Amino acid sequence: MTQLLLNADVGESFGAWRMGQDEAVIPHVHLANIACGFHASDPDVMRSTIRLAKQHQVKIGAHPAYPDLQGFGRRSLQCSPEQIENLVLYQLGALQGLCRAEGTEVTYVKPHGALYNDMMKNEELLRAILRGVKAYSEHLPLMIMSTADNSRAKAMAEEEGMKLMFEAFADRAYDDAGFLVSRRLPNAVHHNPETIIEQATRIALKQPLLSNTGKSLHLEADTLCVHGDNEESIAAVKRIRAALDELG
Amino acid sequence: MTQLLLNADVGESFGAWRMGQDEAVIPHVHLANIACGFHASDPDVMRSTIRLAKQHQVKIGAHPAYPDLQGFGRRSLQCSPEQIENLVLYQLGALQGLCRAEGTEVTYVKPHGALYNDMMKNEELLRAILRGVKAYSEHLPLMIMSTADNSRAKAMAEEEGMKLMFEAFADRAYDDAGFLVSRRLPNAVHHNPETIIEQATRIALKQPLLSNTGKSLHLEADTLCVHGDNEESIAAVKRIRAALDELG
Amino acid sequence: MTQLLLNADVGESFGAWRMGQDEAVIPHVHLANIACGFHASDPDVMRSTIRLAKQHQVKIGAHPAYPDLQGFGRRSLQCSPEQIENLVLYQLGALQGLCRAEGTEVTYVKPHGALYNDMMKNEELLRAILRGVKAYSEHLPLMIMSTADNSRAKAMAEEEGMKLMFEAFADRAYDDAGFLVSRRLPNAVHHNPETIIEQATRIALKQPLLSNTGKSLHLEADTLCVHGDNEESIAAVKRIRAALDELG
Amino acid sequence: MTQLLLNADVGESFGAWRMGQDEAVIPHVHLANIACGFHASDPDVMRSTIRLAKQHQVKIGAHPAYPDLQGFGRRSLQCSPEQIENLVLYQLGALQGLCRAEGTEVTYVKPHGALYNDMMKNEELLRAILRGVKAYSEHLPLMIMSTADNSRAKAMAEEEGMKLMFEAFADRAYDDAGFLVSRRLPNAVHHNPETIIEQATRIALKQPLLSNTGKSLHLEADTLCVHGDNEESIAAVKRIRAALDELG
Repeated sequence: MTQLLLNADVGESFGAWRMGQDEAVIPHVHLANIACGFHASDPDVMRSTIRLAKQHQVKIGAHPAYPDLQGFGRRSLQCSPEQIENLVLYQLGALQGLCRAEGTEVTYVKPHGALYNDMMKNEELLRAILRGVKAYSEHLPLMIMSTADNSRAKAMAEEEGMKLMFEAFADRAYDDAGFLVSRRLPNAVHHNPETIIEQATRIALKQPLLSNTGKSLHLEADTLCVHGDNEESIAAVKRIRAALDELG
Repeated sequence: MTQLLLNADVGESFGAWRMGQDEAVIPHVHLANIACGFHASDPDVMRSTIRLAKQHQVKIGAHPAYPDLQGFGRRSLQCSPEQIENLVLYQLGALQGLCRAEGTEVTYVKPHGALYNDMMKNEELLRAILRGVKAYSEHLPLMIMSTADNSRAKAMAEEEGMKLMFEAFADRAYDDAGFLVSRRLPNAVHHNPETIIEQATRIALKQPLLSNTGKSLHLEADTLCVHGDNEESIAAVKRIRAALDELG
Repeated sequence: MTQLLLNADVGESFGAWRMGQDEAVIPHVHLANIACGFHASDPDVMRSTIRLAKQHQVKIGAHPAYPDLQGFGRRSLQCSPEQIENLVLYQLGALQGLCRAEGTEVTYVKPHGALYNDMMKNEELLRAILRGVKAYSEHLPLMIMSTADNSRAKAMAEEEGMKLMFEAFADRAYDDAGFLVSRRLPNAVHHNPETIIEQATRIALKQPLLSNTGKSLHLEADTLCVHGDNEESIAAVKRIRAALDELG
Repeated sequence: MTQLLLNADVGESFGAWRMGQDEAVIPHVHLANIACGFHASDPDVMRSTIRLAKQHQVKIGAHPAYPDLQGFGRRSLQCSPEQIENLVLYQLGALQGLCRAEGTEVTYVKPHGALYNDMMKNEELLRAILRGVKAYSEHLPLMIMSTADNSRAKAMAEEEGMKLMFEAFADRAYDDAGFLVSRRLPNAVHHNPETIIEQATRIALKQPLLSNTGKSLHLEADTLCVHGDNEESIAAVKRIRAALDELG
């Protein structure tokens, strides 16, 4: 059985500002999505985060974003496909530059925030990101969100000769189409540890989830997104990791 | 005889703002110092500049700078050696990322503006830059300014296991120590095309120049810095290139 | 008869990058829309542009934008109404700060680029801008685009207790609703000086224009937008100014 | 007796990044030095910080800095006096713009970080800042560091027709010249609450301190700098405030 990998957004401090508890969360994940300076981070934070990931043998992914520090990359910015392609290349290259200094390398790409959301809604943008990553290396998979129907994304990746990694969430409710229930709605986020562990386990075992309307939902997933924001979320990561490791 | 190569700072437009006449100057130089987004340029300008350089078989160098768009990288910013190392790696990697998309690569590094000047005055900073470039690749030479006595810089590069390229100027007056006469002083810049061609030729032939006090000055040089700012400077580049090509 | 005033976007240089011919265009307009550092300009460019406007007795308007130097404020950025209100206040205050140093002041506000376009399409955003300007001063009018039906905008301004200035274009074709024909369509921009002068004159005399489908279009206008980009546009400004001055 | 006022740097969060405990410290100080977006803060953080200061009837000061978010304004940037003057005016105006929206106003100016330190070492820079503040308003005092001999600064302020406020520190050791002992040296920072309270009280009562060489040092001071970084520093602020309030 293929292992369900844990990924977390890390390296999101910036200059004098600290964010997240990277030292606490990195030892428990398999994949570290490292910010590249456009929504968070700077060359110094990138360097030390790479060092930390390497020390714990955690794979490094580029986490490119729209250029918007103030908005933390959470605000859509109306870019052309060419601009998207180039900003992905720039950030990917910059992270790789710092990885080389630590004798390691970028092994996948996961877009951040509004760029991630826009990519899931807009095929032209997904294609631009695929082209950007491909132009850097055909061997780097792109991480996107798994939904009930991944066929369009798979077809597009195949056309471009690129690989995808599908990401799921253990702490979020899904709708029938396999999209996340908006945080503005009730019960969008699971807080009960049992519920979270159960959802993680079902995803790992390729068992269906229940959507927010009670329908059966199959979510293909290579990786699970976890968070290192605070004590509570890090406790959740440890429990999820232990549960997954038990599965084998 | 080793050829004296022409290098020019290019790719210094930014967003909607144009600067320099890259299309006119690039065909006449051997080395294109491409801005990396910290003092000028953006991912789109970088991409199109790389394309232009590749089209004319001009070698690409990273042109990293202090992070200061408003000051065009011409204002010193008090960075630690670690910060310098990391900002060089970030910019070098970013440019390499966009080079890969065009099937080409960065082949040397030339710091820009205040970072270049500070590196010539401050050995700790020169060492930080050498370490940054080395951490990326031992095979990328660092371009620095040739002076009357390059022994310290050579020793430092040798200690780090790195190569240097020495740069000279055909349109600037030198003092006895082989430093450029400040632009604030009279006769700091040569405007007479004959004088410029003669200085370029002497440098290429490894003949001594006359310093501004009339002393003989030997300048070891691998490359000559030229400018693509306007019609006049591009005319000068063409004349210098023709004169050097005649030598052989 | 109320005079039709000419307004132009100026002060859009940034650091070492020049844009526009402010010295040539400012003497011929009544209103100078001065960039505030978010899409273009910096404190030094703002200061010298204010000085130039004051010297020619041209009124100064704040020209706030989304924070996007690379995109020159032409890319929509998904901001909340509160963020819009605050970024307008910040930029307006900053320009006023530099105006005080020159013994002059901001007398109106015209949003720039994508912020202007979004304001014309999105009432929530228009209201946020009105609230931002009002929070600064009830006496500063907001310049918006005149269309065939300005009643909604007028009602909203009245509710907020604010004044509007309506802007029209002499060099652009209009559709039946009084919106500009997209530049991607043929005949969107008038190049014939006679056509431009005639359109300016009809607007000044409150005579109807012909829309791009041949319908009669009445456009209420306080001001006409002109451009100082190049020799040709400045020649157009001079002709328009002369034609309007003759009227009255 | 004139009261010794407490001032604290606040509003230094930026976008999604939090810094300092403004809600906890603001109620205990008299003067809030609010960041203006160049080293920290953004229009939204500025607005909410102004609201908080107003709610607690704390006076608002502009806290302008070099443009350097990554370095938190702690790195010197080689600016011309004109650039300094203009960046002070820009930031002061921007803060005042947001103050107007809350029905309040900027009442003094305290430069931040490297700009503050450079101003204390470089008279040309101090003069540039004085000119910038004066160009905005002759009635805004400039806060600078008190040293053993304030005569040069006073003479310069008098020449410019400007007022100064002198700032002292209760938790730092001083040298004989009344400058702060470098943090790199032992005993530069007082950690003992008794020592801090005693130093604050002596400054308030205009009694001499002991320098780090044991000499008597008289420090004229209008205000004491305190910190709202964490629980410990906020506890210190409360103790200092209580001690000063008891004096009278």
